[in-house]
Amino acid sequence: MTKRDLIPDYLKELKPYQAGKPIEELAREKNLTKISKLASNENPLGPSPFAVKEMTYALWDVHRYPDMHSYELKNELSKLYKLKNENIILANGSEGIMALIARTFVLPGDEVVTSEKTFLGFNILFKGVGAKIIEAPMTKDFKYNVEAIANCINKNTRLVYIANPNNPTGNFIKRDEFDFLMSKIPANVLVILDEAYFEFGRFASSEYPDSMDYRYDNVLTLRTFSKAYGLAGIRVGYGFGHETLIGHLHKIKLTFEPGSIAQKGAVGALADYPHLNRTLRNNRRRYNQTAAFLQKHDFRIIDSVTNFICFQTGSEAASDFIYEELLNLGVIIRPLRSNQMADFIRVSLGSKAEMNHFYEAMEQILPAYSKKFRK
Amino acid sequence: MTKRDLIPDYLKELKPYQAGKPIEELAREKNLTKISKLASNENPLGPSPFAVKEMTYALWDVHRYPDMHSYELKNELSKLYKLKNENIILANGSEGIMALIARTFVLPGDEVVTSEKTFLGFNILFKGVGAKIIEAPMTKDFKYNVEAIANCINKNTRLVYIANPNNPTGNFIKRDEFDFLMSKIPANVLVILDEAYFEFGRFASSEYPDSMDYRYDNVLTLRTFSKAYGLAGIRVGYGFGHETLIGHLHKIKLTFEPGSIAQKGAVGALADYPHLNRTLRNNRRRYNQTAAFLQKHDFRIIDSVTNFICFQTGSEAASDFIYEELLNLGVIIRPLRSNQMADFIRVSLGSKAEMNHFYEAMEQILPAYSKKFRK
Repeated sequence: MTKRDLIPDYLKELKPYQAGKPIEELAREKNLTKISKLASNENPLGPSPFAVKEMTYALWDVHRYPDMHSYELKNELSKLYKLKNENIILANGSEGIMALIARTFVLPGDEVVTSEKTFLGFNILFKGVGAKIIEAPMTKDFKYNVEAIANCINKNTRLVYIANPNNPTGNFIKRDEFDFLMSKIPANVLVILDEAYFEFGRFASSEYPDSMDYRYDNVLTLRTFSKAYGLAGIRVGYGFGHETLIGHLHKIKLTFEPGSIAQKGAVGALADYPHLNRTLRNNRRRYNQTAAFLQKHDFRIIDSVTNFICFQTGSEAASDFIYEELLNLGVIIRPLRSNQMADFIRVSLGSKAEMNHFYEAMEQILPAYSKKFRK
Repeated sequence: MTKRDLIPDYLKELKPYQAGKPIEELAREKNLTKISKLASNENPLGPSPFAVKEMTYALWDVHRYPDMHSYELKNELSKLYKLKNENIILANGSEGIMALIARTFVLPGDEVVTSEKTFLGFNILFKGVGAKIIEAPMTKDFKYNVEAIANCINKNTRLVYIANPNNPTGNFIKRDEFDFLMSKIPANVLVILDEAYFEFGRFASSEYPDSMDYRYDNVLTLRTFSKAYGLAGIRVGYGFGHETLIGHLHKIKLTFEPGSIAQKGAVGALADYPHLNRTLRNNRRRYNQTAAFLQKHDFRIIDSVTNFICFQTGSEAASDFIYEELLNLGVIIRPLRSNQMADFIRVSLGSKAEMNHFYEAMEQILPAYSKKFRK
């Protein structure tokens, strides 16, 4: 019999990604009724009503398998972004596409380069195929250090991961920085450009680069319907890239991803531009308001173009204190220990009511916080 | 730079699974209005209305990420099958769980043993991780040959795959055959017991073994909501097994599978026993009727306990003829060339109206078929 261990070494120590606590779970644990979940960067306006209508109709056909070619959704994306269907891949969230990339192009021992303080899901997925993760330091103001990233690239580098805008910091790299970085990356090293927050970045800043202009043959751009489009529950991510790369990913994609309701919802959401526009405008209002609130209370914030904002608590203990106290008051935020930012907290920009809940809860715990953690 | 090829050798020749042609695709191609899809073993009664209601409510919360622990659905499955939550894994279809098993426990070069003429998705998924597929022959009457399977097991065998009932043949192995096979499989070889058609098997024959009685530590049982439960579009499969095996699978599962609508639909479907019962009773009626129809027209059939039936056409050319002629008349069935059964055709057991469509179309093409392919 095969004498080796049940699972490869690189899977032994792997810990799954921990998502933000779901509302039902907190409700069960603490017996709370009013809960504001500001931990997963979800769209506080909910899904597009038009998308909901499309999905409602489709529910009665749910005994049929999904269209494995996602004909309609690919056509809509092609039209919107002026691409060919062969340049598009759809899967269960952009996490799903990232998993496909890892399993198609990366072998145990390969080096993959990224920055510290970036999306944790990347590390977990690539450790899960035995890759060695190399993390460049950030600048002192928590920005991607493209020079430091470039310096990590060597003959063992298989892939570079860039989240733009970045999660959890919420900031972004500009066009000239991206161009500089690309000039340092050899053509046979793949680049994942994770644009999960693309719609927010484009709306918030004219300096945010439009990746559709890049057209590098070794870049795979990832986007999602989970954030600005408000469809996190049904799992649709899409990727753009050279048709050779996309073709390889299709070889190991699950036959039927995304599901049929997911495909319908995504088509509906793309058609509802007013809902997207409302989402983006509301988000900027909540951002300005929340940044002002945090600064008024002497928290250092990181400038964000996204639907979340990070503020500095001073220490890991202070972050834990705020996290736990807010939980008791029904507000779920995201501590950042696993992102090497233990003295920061990330809060999603929710609805007006949710943010008021957050402000009030913060004001309630601030005296105790100041006494314990501020001199 | 890494000098090796872009993708590993075992992915180079890999061809994705080809699903049954979707209704919309045939409608586009042939400009047909009346189409009966009898190619993917879907539930002709549609989804449970109760499940649809549950999903409809949930659509307005689709901006929230799914519960990554599938708390409610696991609880319902635990109650129904008297298991602990630690013994259950949920993923995007049983194909999704099979993919997890391949990537967790199998390395390039491992041998995996199965039968010829079984579910093609297995071969594709395990070739996709570089496994060597060993196929035992079937008996002359198209049944799993458990002795032949046992003879394929050697020191390089990592895993054995058994579909029970089998797809595409529709028959099953009985308890004593399964026990015999298990007695020949060493404890450190994993067994995938794919029970996608379990509900049909249990309903149609008292000799179908209930895998809940097996309780072998090396067996992973796979089931699905895509067949009897009529939820193929939303992709929910579940697996049972020893908590160590299940724990390992959770390490590389996507964070958010299945989706939120999928979880709600599955919970609703489990609660709607009358719909399941109707599905199973209707299916047996359609089976008896269709078997009689095919035999009346001198086709050899393979006895099936499932929601599909195979009949012998005489040759690959005859199968192609029937497939193409039926397509022209709006009936989609499944040719079995890729399953090494080129002289057979598989037809799903649809609704009464769909089966009448199939019978009429068959009778329309039979004169030409007989003239060309029968002496």
